[in-house]
Order: sequence, then structure tokens, then C-alpha cells
Amino acid sequence: MADNDVLSHPALDKVAGEEFLQDAFQIMMEEGIRKGMDVSEKVCDWKEPEELHQILDLDLKDSGESRERLLERCREVIRYSVKTCHPRFFNQLFSGLDPHALTGQLITDMLNTSQYTYEIAPVFVLMEEVVLKQLRKLIGWEGGDGIFCPGGSISNIYAMNVARYHCFPECKQKGNWAVPRLAAFTSVECHYSIQKGAAFLGIGTDNVYLVAVDEKGKMIPADLEKQIKQAKSERAVPFFVNATCGTTVLGAFDPLAEIAEVCARHKVWLHVDAAWGGSALLSRKHRHLLDGINRADSVAWNPHKMLMTGLQCSAFLLQHSSDLLQKCHCAKATYLFQTDKFYDMSYDRGDKTIQCGRKVDCLKLWLMWKANGTRGLEQRVDRAFAFTRYLADEIKKREGFQLVQEPEFINLCFWFVPPSLRGKEGSTDYSHRLGKVAPAIKERMMKKGSMMVSYQPHGNRANFFRQVVTNPAVTKADLDFFLDEIERLGKDL
Amino acid sequence: MADNDVLSHPALDKVAGEEFLQDAFQIMMEEGIRKGMDVSEKVCDWKEPEELHQILDLDLKDSGESRERLLERCREVIRYSVKTCHPRFFNQLFSGLDPHALTGQLITDMLNTSQYTYEIAPVFVLMEEVVLKQLRKLIGWEGGDGIFCPGGSISNIYAMNVARYHCFPECKQKGNWAVPRLAAFTSVECHYSIQKGAAFLGIGTDNVYLVAVDEKGKMIPADLEKQIKQAKSERAVPFFVNATCGTTVLGAFDPLAEIAEVCARHKVWLHVDAAWGGSALLSRKHRHLLDGINRADSVAWNPHKMLMTGLQCSAFLLQHSSDLLQKCHCAKATYLFQTDKFYDMSYDRGDKTIQCGRKVDCLKLWLMWKANGTRGLEQRVDRAFAFTRYLADEIKKREGFQLVQEPEFINLCFWFVPPSLRGKEGSTDYSHRLGKVAPAIKERMMKKGSMMVSYQPHGNRANFFRQVVTNPAVTKADLDFFLDEIERLGKDL
Ligand SMILES: Cc1ncc(COP(=O)(O)O)c(C=O)c1O
Ligand SMILES: Cc1ncc(COP(=O)(O)O)c(C=O)c1O
Repeated sequence: MADNDVLSHPALDKVAGEEFLQDAFQIMMEEGIRKGMDVSEKVCDWKEPEELHQILDLDLKDSGESRERLLERCREVIRYSVKTCHPRFFNQLFSGLDPHALTGQLITDMLNTSQYTYEIAPVFVLMEEVVLKQLRKLIGWEGGDGIFCPGGSISNIYAMNVARYHCFPECKQKGNWAVPRLAAFTSVECHYSIQKGAAFLGIGTDNVYLVAVDEKGKMIPADLEKQIKQAKSERAVPFFVNATCGTTVLGAFDPLAEIAEVCARHKVWLHVDAAWGGSALLSRKHRHLLDGINRADSVAWNPHKMLMTGLQCSAFLLQHSSDLLQKCHCAKATYLFQTDKFYDMSYDRGDKTIQCGRKVDCLKLWLMWKANGTRGLEQRVDRAFAFTRYLADEIKKREGFQLVQEPEFINLCFWFVPPSLRGKEGSTDYSHRLGKVAPAIKERMMKKGSMMVSYQPHGNRANFFRQVVTNPAVTKADLDFFLDEIERLGKDL
Repeated sequence: MADNDVLSHPALDKVAGEEFLQDAFQIMMEEGIRKGMDVSEKVCDWKEPEELHQILDLDLKDSGESRERLLERCREVIRYSVKTCHPRFFNQLFSGLDPHALTGQLITDMLNTSQYTYEIAPVFVLMEEVVLKQLRKLIGWEGGDGIFCPGGSISNIYAMNVARYHCFPECKQKGNWAVPRLAAFTSVECHYSIQKGAAFLGIGTDNVYLVAVDEKGKMIPADLEKQIKQAKSERAVPFFVNATCGTTVLGAFDPLAEIAEVCARHKVWLHVDAAWGGSALLSRKHRHLLDGINRADSVAWNPHKMLMTGLQCSAFLLQHSSDLLQKCHCAKATYLFQTDKFYDMSYDRGDKTIQCGRKVDCLKLWLMWKANGTRGLEQRVDRAFAFTRYLADEIKKREGFQLVQEPEFINLCFWFVPPSLRGKEGSTDYSHRLGKVAPAIKERMMKKGSMMVSYQPHGNRANFFRQVVTNPAVTKADLDFFLDEIERLGKDL
């Protein structure tokens, strides 16, 4: 066919496309959701990389495949993937599947727009503002600013950049060479994104001063004070303090009110990494854990963790209503942010970020919130706390289980000590041998597919399990199974 | 109920959840896809921000809403959003909807996992490697490295950071203060993410040297040479050259082979921003536009633009097979990247990025590729070129339409000169008056909902339209409509 003939007809078969989507959706519902949430099915059908590569026949070829083969491929992808919605998946800080959030995500994908201008995302520009405002309200801020970012790490890195700009706006043009050596402060328990951020922003990981924590993993404000003075004596300029609400491993909450005092005294930007713990603000019973968060300059909060919106949904929030975020990140591209549009161009918010195209992350949270109301979300948060309480109490009753510490949040950290090691706490290789238990149990549960939970070493503590329940589909029976299964898998070690 | 009773039952109604998903999916198919792709429907039902806010009743409340109301909300969100799959949507560098890519995206969302470790994303860890390898093969690299990033901007910023690390690895620990002032080079036509990146990385926008372009918008290698020498004479260290394949506005391709020569001579990292133009590599007919790309050190390529995978899908690719990316970005968090796992831990690739949680971006591209084959994707690329050719020829035949330049790629840049301005090219306010035409036509098309196309000023050129067709559902009739409609909307201006 000549070019012109070809161009007279669409090169996409709409009817076949819709049929494919319909069929694939049913496979997804059946294989992913129905089976995924069924405790009699595996959490993951584990294969070693080599074998999985073979099964999946991943290589890309010159010609396309039949509709049947493609649907089969959808089935396989689901089959060999981890079911994070499974009631026995406790491996990450996210789990479960909320049908409204997922619906919001599916609509987002179908609409496939970018969040930069009102003209291209009218609904989502307005919705993002409403959702961010609601999050700020829970923090205790009436005004403020913010934006959704591709993950909490990037939210934290934005905070560092905005704090730097706030101190030294000339850095944007001239780079770090034009400003004194900067010093950032965070506890040794902080998320690694603070280190990654310091490296990325050209500040350097050596300029992150690590503040000591108490035995629960909380930052010691007196040590923060000391470190700030130390930095000053080394002729660095303290510009950024990161406090964590809900540390990744222990779930510790830094004492914000006292930290805010130190920051105020030294006029340093206070950022709160509440990526994990922020959602506790929804609970009237537990929000006291974050007392003082309203004094922060900025906050990172990931609804994609505890609130189950699905990856990614991370808010970077600012107390300041000034144009700081915009000024810090803008490039004023005239091809996108024209200044002669017919509508109010203050709704074009895309220049507040370092991104250009930006996924819509608000709809899933908004729809889930509309479905459950603030009170419904609160119940979920309270339920997660109750589960952790229940498990901690059970652990105390069971021989061989040992809490690393009383959980303050929903990170349940514990060792399983197999019979062969019980009563041997005094022996020199105890810690070494205990450290081998969690990995061995993990291997067995993965190969069996019965559940998933993470473990890690921590300071000089040997490997322990960190279990987290955020999924409201989980019941007490699943938690009893969890402990029984660890015992079953580990009793001969 | 006492806590323990509550915990005995799931707090999520699985059946109701599935039903909601089913109903919402049908709404999405009907309102979003079927109507969205129907030319007799509006591209967007335009409302001013205030009015839309009222219609949508966005505020979040204490209690949840009924299933019916929520489904109605899904309908409304879709109704007032822009249909980027509509055959008359020409506003961004992305458009159209591929059913296989969308399926891949939906499955990704349902599975809701994060790309960091093999244990949590076995299928996607392997799949990402295969897809990235295929992209590298098209560039002409046998080995190499890479990762999917949240957008081309971040891919470009990664390139700058890796280039910096390559020159001065100590910068990661010590910050920019420990290294000499760095100088980056890019053409004046480059994407604004290079500026944003320089600011973010603490390098500073003043240290981005802007290289002159020829009349087609291509970087002039001799000027690059000159700027590098200039920077050196100013005691800065040239560390990064960005060449663009497919500039955002004009669609220009920088002459890579010559630029590579300059870079080799000065031992400077060559990054190619092929976010937009990279997909031309799929076409045997048009890939010559990127001749020399195999000499780049790194490449950014966004399948979410021309290839219609849906936002986001952006590959950052490296020629180097060394561990550079890992070394540059790693933080070695032991809670995630344990070193005593039972499987080959080299499959845990998450420490190559500055993110922690990372969305899976490979499945949609992989499934679409499996469905169409490399040849099918090539046909789409060729079709996009053919459309641009067709439109450029039509424009030459029509009175009042004027090309800004002959399109080399698929950016069709043109003015519409209304009858009142024709023959007035000599008058002093011609340019000023012409600059008001595109915004006025844009306003009219938005309010009518008939189509969407972007415009911008450019250098000292008055506002012109930039039209792009990537959607294979578009036909010649849509393009004829496009030109007719501009005439209809603009003839009285
Ligand atoms: C305390 C804390 N902050 C930040 C993050 C990073 O969030 P993301 O994975 O969205 O980058 C995490 C992730 O686990 C975290 O635990
Ligand atoms: C040439 C070029 N590079 C990079 C980008 C940035 O890509 P993204 O929107 O994915 O950040 C764009 C976006 O339009 C572009 O045109």
C-alpha cells in the first residue's frame, strides 16, 4: 500500500484491543486478586532466576504473538510474581490491596496524563491540592505547600534541596562552590535516602552528621545539639535536620518537640521523614507519637505504605506558604508553562518539581478516602496497631520467641531461637549461630510459598525478623499461622 | 467489640471489593476508552478551575460514601479529564493508548510490588534486564548497564551524577567542595531538565555552558569545542556533554558523531538525551538520525513518549558494563540488601538508584513488544513519520499556513496566519499580532473540546503550534480535520 492509503485507516484495532483488555482484566481478577488473597494459595511460586528466565521466555523478537499466547503470558507473569495482597505477606512496609485505591490507579493509567498543567490534568491538579491540604491539616498546618513525588526517598531529597535553597538561594545558580560547606543531621536509624540525597545533591555523605539514638532507636536531642556545635566548630553550616517518625527497622519515633527546640535555637530547617509513621496521624489514639510534627518545616509522608494506596504515593509537604518550592525547582520552560494562557496559570504547578512528566498519584488516595472516610482510614490504622499488640503478647507467651523490644509502632522485631540454641545465650558463638536462623527460615518459607517476612541484622544485633501488618484482610488466624509456621520451619535448626 | 473479636474477622469485604473493581472497570472501558477514542466525543469537557471544583465536590470527609456515589465519581473524574487517547489529541509528546501496554500497567498495579530485590519482584527483575538489554542493542551496545527511572528528567539527572562520579568519585563522600568547579555543556535547545539537574546536584545553572545551534536547532560542534576551551580557561573542569536526539520543540537531532569526537578529544562524558527521539532507533528507515549514538557513555530514552507505553517508562542506559551505576548510587542498606540471602544476590538491583521503592515500569513495554514484535513497533514509528510528512505537505498547499521549518522528525511546527495578517509580514507589529493567534485558537479549541495542540514562543519567533502524532489510531481524516479546524477557529482573528 502507498503511504497515503495506509494513513487512511487506523493502525490499531479498537475492538480487538478492548477485547484483550477485558480478557486480561478477568485473568487479573482471578489469578491476581482472588487467588492472591486466598490463604490456601502460595504467596509466591518461587523459582531460581535461571529457571524462571526459561519458563517466562522473556526475549523480545521481531514478530508479535497471538492473542492467546499473550493472555497466557499475563497469567504467567502473575503466577510467578509475589502476591503482596496475600494475607501472609509481611515482608515490606506495604501490603494488602484496597479495591478503591486500585480502581483509582487503573483509571489514572487509562487516562494517562501528566500532572504538570491544568490544561492537561484539570481534575488532578485540583485533586492533588485537596489531598495535600488534607494531609497538611492532619499535621496541624492551615496553609503550606507540597507535591507528590516518586517515592519517599525523593521526598526526603527534595527537603534537603529546599532547605539548602532556603539558606543559600545563590546555590541554584552557582553551585555548592559558592556556599560554605553544609552539614546535615540525622539519626543513625534514619532511612538511607538521607545519605543518598547528600551524595546526589553534591553535599557528600561525610557531611551528614549521625546523631546517636537511645535504646529504643530514638534520636537523642542532646546529641543533636552536640553534633550541631561540632559541625559549627568545623566551620560547616548546619542547614538541615532530619527527624524520623517510624524508623524503617525498629519503627522508632524521634522526639519532635525537643528536636524542634534545638532546630529553633540554631535556626536550622527541620524536616520530618514520616514516610512510614505519618499515617498514624489519622488515629486519634496514636497520633501523639508524632507530637510536635506541626513545628517541622517540611514533612515526607508515604500513603503508599501504611494506607495501602499502592506504589507510588508519597507527599512532600511544606509548612511555608511562600513560593519556596516553585522558586527552588523552577526552570520556567516556555513550551510548557506559557505565560499567555487563557486560564489562571497559577494552576500550572508542574514547575515545582525536578520532573517534567509526572504521574498522577492523588486519585487513588482520594478515591480510597472518599470510600472510607477519615474514620474508616483511622480504623485501619488502629487495627494495625492492635495486630502488633496481639502478636507481641503472643510472642511473650511462646517459648523460643523473643522480642527485640516492645513495639511502639507496628514494626514487630523479634528473634526465633530454635530449641538447639535455647539456654545457650552465654556461649561465645550464640550470636553468630542465632544470626543464621532467620535466613534459613526465610529460605524455607520462600521455597514453600507459605508466607513472607523480612529479616536483617541491626547494629551488633544478630539477624531478627521484622514483621509488619498493614493489610486489613489479615485476621488473628493468619497471625497465629505466622508464629506457628516460624516454629515449624525453624524447630530443627 | 473487643479488639480480639474485631481481629478475628477481615476488615475488608473481598466480594464487595471485587464487584466494585468490575463495575469501575466497565465504566473505565465505556467512558474512558470507547468514548475517549471516539472522534464524535470531546477531547476534554473544559471547565474553569472554580467551576470544576464545585462539580467534583473534592473535599474529604469523616465518613465514607456509598458504592453508587463512588462509581458516579469515577465517571465524573473520567468525564472531566483530558482524553489523551483521543485521535485529535496532539498536545504532548505522548498520545494514544496501546491495549497491551495498558494491560501491562494494570497488572503492574494489581501486583503492586517494588523493583528493588529479586525476592519481591522475581519476574520484573529479570524482565527489566531483558528490556533494557534490547534497548541497548538498538543503540548498538553489546554490554552495558541501566535502569528505569521516574521520567526522562531524572534519567538525565542520573547521567550528570554518574558522569560526576566517574570523574571524581570522592565527591560522593565529600561533596562538590572537594572537587574543582564542574562545567556541563548542552545546546540552547536542550530540555530544561539539564538546568534543573545542575541546580539539584549542587553544580549550579551558571555552570551549564549553552552551546549554539544552527538554524535547524542542532548543536554546532565547533561551538561546543569553543565552550569547552572557554570553561577550561575559566578553571572549570568539563565533565559532561549532553546532546539531544529530538529536541522538545523543534525535534532537532544533534550531530552525535562530531560531538563524540569533541568529547573524546577532551575526555568528557557524552550523554545523549534521546528521551524523545530514541524510539526512531526502531525504524530501519529513520534510525540514521541517531548515527553515532553508540559512542555515547549514557543515553536517556522514554518509551512512554513515542512508543505509547503510558507514563512512566524512561530508561537510563549506560555503555559501561562496570559497576559504575551501583557504586555511584549505592547505600548498602542491610535491611533490604542483606548479604546472606539464599539466592544469587546480584539480582537485587535496587541499590543502583536513588529511590528505595521503585515502580515496575518494564512490564507494559515488554508486553507491548511481545504483542507487536520489533517490526510492529517499527511500523508505528514509520507511520508517525509519514503523518508528519503528509501534514507538512498539506500545510504547504494551504493558504495562511506556514512551516517554521521542514520537519526532520515528527515535531510539526507551524504558524497559522489569519486572513487579517496575510501580506502584512513587513509591518512592525506583525510578530506581536501573530503571537496572539495561537493562544486565541487554543482557547477556542479547548472550550469547544474539538482537539488539543500545544503552542509556544521560541527564541525570537512568535508563538507557533507544535503538533505531534504518535497515536496509530489517527487517520488522515483526523489530520485534515486538524488543519480545517485551525482555519475555522482562526479565520476571524
Ligand atoms: C523511614 C523511611 N523513610 C523513607 C523511605 C523511602 O520511601 P520510598 O520507598 O517511597 O522511597 C522509607 C522506605 O522504606 C522509610 O522506611
Ligand atoms: C528532549 C526531552 N528530554 C527529556 C524530557 C523529559 O522527560 P520526562 O517528561 O519523562 O521527564 C523531555 C520531555 O518532554 C524531552 O522532550
